[in-house]
Amino acid sequence: MPKKCEHLNKEIFNCLMKSINTILLDCDGVLYRGNCMVPGVDAVLNKLKSMGKRLFYVTNNSSKTRIQFSKKLASFGFPVCENNVISSSYSTAMYLRSKLNLNKDHVFCIGSDNLVTELKQACLKVVTPEIPEGVGGVEKALNYKLHPDVACVLIANDENLTYLKVAEGMRYLLSKDHECIFVATNSDSSYPVGVDILLPGAGSCVKMLETAVGRNVDVTCGKPNVTMLKAVQDEFEIESDKTLMVGDRLDTDIEFASHCSLRSLLVLTGCANSGDVTRIQNGDVPDTSVPNYYTESLADLAKYLV
Amino acid sequence: MPKKCEHLNKEIFNCLMKSINTILLDCDGVLYRGNCMVPGVDAVLNKLKSMGKRLFYVTNNSSKTRIQFSKKLASFGFPVCENNVISSSYSTAMYLRSKLNLNKDHVFCIGSDNLVTELKQACLKVVTPEIPEGVGGVEKALNYKLHPDVACVLIANDENLTYLKVAEGMRYLLSKDHECIFVATNSDSSYPVGVDILLPGAGSCVKMLETAVGRNVDVTCGKPNVTMLKAVQDEFEIESDKTLMVGDRLDTDIEFASHCSLRSLLVLTGCANSGDVTRIQNGDVPDTSVPNYYTESLADLAKYLV
Repeated sequence: MPKKCEHLNKEIFNCLMKSINTILLDCDGVLYRGNCMVPGVDAVLNKLKSMGKRLFYVTNNSSKTRIQFSKKLASFGFPVCENNVISSSYSTAMYLRSKLNLNKDHVFCIGSDNLVTELKQACLKVVTPEIPEGVGGVEKALNYKLHPDVACVLIANDENLTYLKVAEGMRYLLSKDHECIFVATNSDSSYPVGVDILLPGAGSCVKMLETAVGRNVDVTCGKPNVTMLKAVQDEFEIESDKTLMVGDRLDTDIEFASHCSLRSLLVLTGCANSGDVTRIQNGDVPDTSVPNYYTESLADLAKYLV
Repeated sequence: MPKKCEHLNKEIFNCLMKSINTILLDCDGVLYRGNCMVPGVDAVLNKLKSMGKRLFYVTNNSSKTRIQFSKKLASFGFPVCENNVISSSYSTAMYLRSKLNLNKDHVFCIGSDNLVTELKQACLKVVTPEIPEGVGGVEKALNYKLHPDVACVLIANDENLTYLKVAEGMRYLLSKDHECIFVATNSDSSYPVGVDILLPGAGSCVKMLETAVGRNVDVTCGKPNVTMLKAVQDEFEIESDKTLMVGDRLDTDIEFASHCSLRSLLVLTGCANSGDVTRIQNGDVPDTSVPNYYTESLADLAKYLV
């Protein structure tokens, strides 16, 4: 019998509030879209905070530092500080801290400058691709001297990705002198900007390098992978059975909750819509993509919080 | 019962020569490696030519024009003119000529300048990505005005590939105003340069764009796909039952021969080695990857040509 999801109501909500102390919030599509807040979400978050619930903002976006993220969130009036932001950059940094020899191992990082900043703040040693002036310069890739202490190739979304960067990553992964772990921040194939434009996401960059080397990444640190939570769970003392995940995507947020044994609430202000709810109720999605509860908007919680 | 392959000998060779009039030759790994000719191949090719056999040079490489290829081949002393070169660029151009409205349809092409030249020589209208100075410039991707007559997105190996080019290709493929066919020159995931360095191949670039748009290419024009031959078969009057394919790779050259119903000869001067022959004879490879014959080097044919 396929799993079903329940529409949120006062009774369910009251019950839920008694059993959780922590709420993980996906950002884009739940709290805002682009630069527009989902109306009423600010009041709900502040009320939840004042009730003593711990709020974490959980994003796969690796293009901003946690400080930059917290500033964006604060600009909407949300209760936030840097330490409440769990980005895929941060979970990746924490994961790599646990896997690498911090005195020696270097990370070859294909990704944004802000990802590099996040890694360095976590005391990781980072090597970045040699970007030639302009594009091209395959001879440079051939003459590029590999850093002897690179023990990880990390790839993320990189709006400055070039063929040459992929060629450099490939050399580390195929080099007999380097036993590199191969890590991705996240696997989102695309992401929306503006009204209706999609840009390539980390998953697209990852696939290019995976195809080139004929090997899949060993670990992906973003949602829906448990690594996203495991890498920070001890630090934040997150208890799975006392935590609710709120998200707008079945294949990232809700899967993530399932993989991490969290309860989950789907909102319809982002990717998922009422058609998806119908598909869920008809048993047309995998059990791991079925949320425990759904509601139209996170702002609906205001009704139950009076 | 798995298909087997026979070691070439004088009897088989004589029989073969009576039944074929055309030989398709893979280049790298069969005729040369990098800039070094496989010893003795020049004499064999000239002898075959003098016996009246038609020779075609068949390459997935889309980074050189047919003229440039023929010059490289001629420099080794091989009997060649531009018209004997069947590159994935050329087969792609011929394929697109048969599919597009030549008066109107434009091809958005991500690939080398030489690929663009090949397309234009075939009277195709080509739009190339707007390359910003240096890398980056996502705003440019957002503001980029789509060409209204683009009806095909073509992707090939591109040593100048950038994130922005992929973003532009993505916009055409996802645009509601464009019904684009989505085509790749070839799907080789990597290619060797120098002694032991691999660079990303067309297949890696293709995968990035395919992942970004969540859709696979409609057609791949290079080996092992039949399109490689079909696009030029009429022009060159190639009769499948009178044609031998010589190659060094099971998954491209030999598969190609199988898909096109050509007889095939594997040589061991490139990718495949004696271990692969053992795997073939043990039935450990798919039937479509089993050549009819194998020999250590194309130069071995000199023994039977006296």
